[in-house]
Amino acid sequence: MLFSELHTPKRTIMTPGPVEVDPRVLRAMSTPILGQFDPAFTNIMNEVMEMLRQVFQTKNRWAFPIDGTSRSGNEAILCSIIEPGDKVLVPIYGRFGHLLVEICERYGAEVHTLECPWGEVFEPQVVIAEIKKVNPKIVAIVHGETSTGRIQPLAEIGKACRERDILFVVDAVASIGGVEVKTDEWYIDGLIGGTQKCLSVPSGMAPITYNDRIETILFARKKVERGIATEEDLRFTRSKHAISSNYFDLSMLQDYWGPRRLNHHTEATSMIYALHEGLRLVLIEGLQQRFDRHMLHEKALIAGLEAMGLRLFGDSRHKLPCVTCVEIPNGVDGESVRKMLLDEFSIEIASSFGPLHGKIWRIGTMGYSCRKENILAVLGALEAVLIRHGVNVIRGEALQAALDEYKVTRLAGMAVEKSS
Amino acid sequence: MLFSELHTPKRTIMTPGPVEVDPRVLRAMSTPILGQFDPAFTNIMNEVMEMLRQVFQTKNRWAFPIDGTSRSGNEAILCSIIEPGDKVLVPIYGRFGHLLVEICERYGAEVHTLECPWGEVFEPQVVIAEIKKVNPKIVAIVHGETSTGRIQPLAEIGKACRERDILFVVDAVASIGGVEVKTDEWYIDGLIGGTQKCLSVPSGMAPITYNDRIETILFARKKVERGIATEEDLRFTRSKHAISSNYFDLSMLQDYWGPRRLNHHTEATSMIYALHEGLRLVLIEGLQQRFDRHMLHEKALIAGLEAMGLRLFGDSRHKLPCVTCVEIPNGVDGESVRKMLLDEFSIEIASSFGPLHGKIWRIGTMGYSCRKENILAVLGALEAVLIRHGVNVIRGEALQAALDEYKVTRLAGMAVEKSS
Repeated sequence: MLFSELHTPKRTIMTPGPVEVDPRVLRAMSTPILGQFDPAFTNIMNEVMEMLRQVFQTKNRWAFPIDGTSRSGNEAILCSIIEPGDKVLVPIYGRFGHLLVEICERYGAEVHTLECPWGEVFEPQVVIAEIKKVNPKIVAIVHGETSTGRIQPLAEIGKACRERDILFVVDAVASIGGVEVKTDEWYIDGLIGGTQKCLSVPSGMAPITYNDRIETILFARKKVERGIATEEDLRFTRSKHAISSNYFDLSMLQDYWGPRRLNHHTEATSMIYALHEGLRLVLIEGLQQRFDRHMLHEKALIAGLEAMGLRLFGDSRHKLPCVTCVEIPNGVDGESVRKMLLDEFSIEIASSFGPLHGKIWRIGTMGYSCRKENILAVLGALEAVLIRHGVNVIRGEALQAALDEYKVTRLAGMAVEKSS
Repeated sequence: MLFSELHTPKRTIMTPGPVEVDPRVLRAMSTPILGQFDPAFTNIMNEVMEMLRQVFQTKNRWAFPIDGTSRSGNEAILCSIIEPGDKVLVPIYGRFGHLLVEICERYGAEVHTLECPWGEVFEPQVVIAEIKKVNPKIVAIVHGETSTGRIQPLAEIGKACRERDILFVVDAVASIGGVEVKTDEWYIDGLIGGTQKCLSVPSGMAPITYNDRIETILFARKKVERGIATEEDLRFTRSKHAISSNYFDLSMLQDYWGPRRLNHHTEATSMIYALHEGLRLVLIEGLQQRFDRHMLHEKALIAGLEAMGLRLFGDSRHKLPCVTCVEIPNGVDGESVRKMLLDEFSIEIASSFGPLHGKIWRIGTMGYSCRKENILAVLGALEAVLIRHGVNVIRGEALQAALDEYKVTRLAGMAVEKSS
């Protein structure tokens, strides 16, 4: 049986990822392959590292992508620093906190958790009190929780960790490139970013960064593969357990990304091209301009949703600007609404997980998807679909409110967007 | 600091991977993104599974890519079936055998090895005798060993494993799509393919397949993430240890690739597009035609190299058709030759690892790189560069011999290529 070539529908993607990719990034992926040790390619790798440092706002030596989807970055950092029995504290305020627990448990950590209701975040002092009680080796937390649309303030927690010599690991998959992430200023030791969200690069890479506090652990657990090890490498005896995963062993990955260029995997050439172009577009736009753009479109979206009479979900003081959670009106089948949006309007929005499944829709405004035409498209279509589902929305006001918001913001001289 | 857009040199890539990618595959990667649960996308995922089954020559239900480079496929299968203390037998005849050992050890296996000199392979009976002695739970072996350019016969070993209810895991990263790989006929329980070699898809995915013998183990170790688990999932108690890795947990991956579509990672959209097009091109060409094409160009390459007076490395009865190893003439700096080929002719060939480093060059003839123009380019350039390095080669004969080979083969009516 032979299949035909790809013939995909054109979608407006307003989910919390994967989101639309800038055509310039898509084109970069068509660039012919280079060998992995071709100087022309290793130069591209080095440029990616430098651009990642800028986006992560760090002076760390190590900033490179793991060749896997976002969660591979979490696993790479966590499995490289966790030894069996290590205490890890994970404050959970949504699905991806549970994922951190799951990974830590699998690598033998003694995991302590702290939970708050989905839709809220933690007062930093609450986490710090628990840190004092548990005295963990590691605190791992999500920065932007897409499942609930919340953002956790990190600066105070990071400072408290550093004062106690605790490692602070942050999952910034959903926030990087969309809202402020200050790796060094917030005392983050290991940070994981995502590509397919606010960076608007296809899924398949997880850019990470870590500092010398983590590198010290890597040195103690270092191993070189026998097939390529020198005599000296083989004499090298580890003072601690080797890392359980070969693929995620950061001590090997940094020997591949560093000047020794010691062969590990074969770097994912086309994805590196995409990441190179994606990071370049972020830096050309400017970090602050990009954050402002995400907030501008969030404002217009919220104005439209509220004008329609819909209610937002969650603690508004800690809303993640690039994900807007909307309560599904009573008696409405949320999946039916999503299906009609996709089938009739070719627009995709998301549902949620666990306790929020069937309760909220999530509308993403991330990266290249975060454009005026998309905001207006989703508002117009949602109104029509809700009317079709018998919901008593306020008619005709959503688009007016959004357009007003764009006009007001323009008049106030705020955030002139470069990308939309 | 801002970098300029990608501006890569045009290379003729004659290494054992990553190799040149068909322009149709590169173009497919520019296709705009779809959401991961968009029916238009899950349909593409299903087509990829079906095409993988055909390329793997299997009726297995499960055939899908791991989102990582080739070795991620090895790690996914091995970590999903190995429990601490399990006995694994790994016959090693090159670098990638050592990699299998390395992965098994990290996941707590009791690894037994068997080694033969690099450049040779094992007589099946030697491996079978060791199987009887060790009685392992798993035999893991490389099919095509790129580090030495050898191919290991597998059918008898597979049969012996099945008779003893031993799991047979094969790394076919370098052979799949270039030479015959008969998953079912050879009694292979778990098989790993590579994308960036004979399939000529960019690096970054590892297509795998496994049968119900492996699936039985997965069911016993199954786990569903708390953030998305149903009540029923949580009541589910495992009879055995959970798999150490979350990212590589095949029990979760098959719930994502199967009808339940349970969210795990976000599938790497653009890489799936590339794999879809790459597999399509393999099947359009036809498996047998493709294998014939690889042998045709290998023959021409060898004729040229020998006409130049160079010597091939390794046991010729078990040569891997898509990798040709050439002995570096005495007194020649192999790296200097490679550098001149790249700098002056924009042609890349490879060195090797471990005991063979500095002893041989490796010339790949894989997938889209396996074309007449490339064979002729590498022969002509190599002759010139060797002369420039003071090597006393037979002048002017290499290209004539290769052209003769193409002519003879054509006249004999063999292997008319579709792709070059």
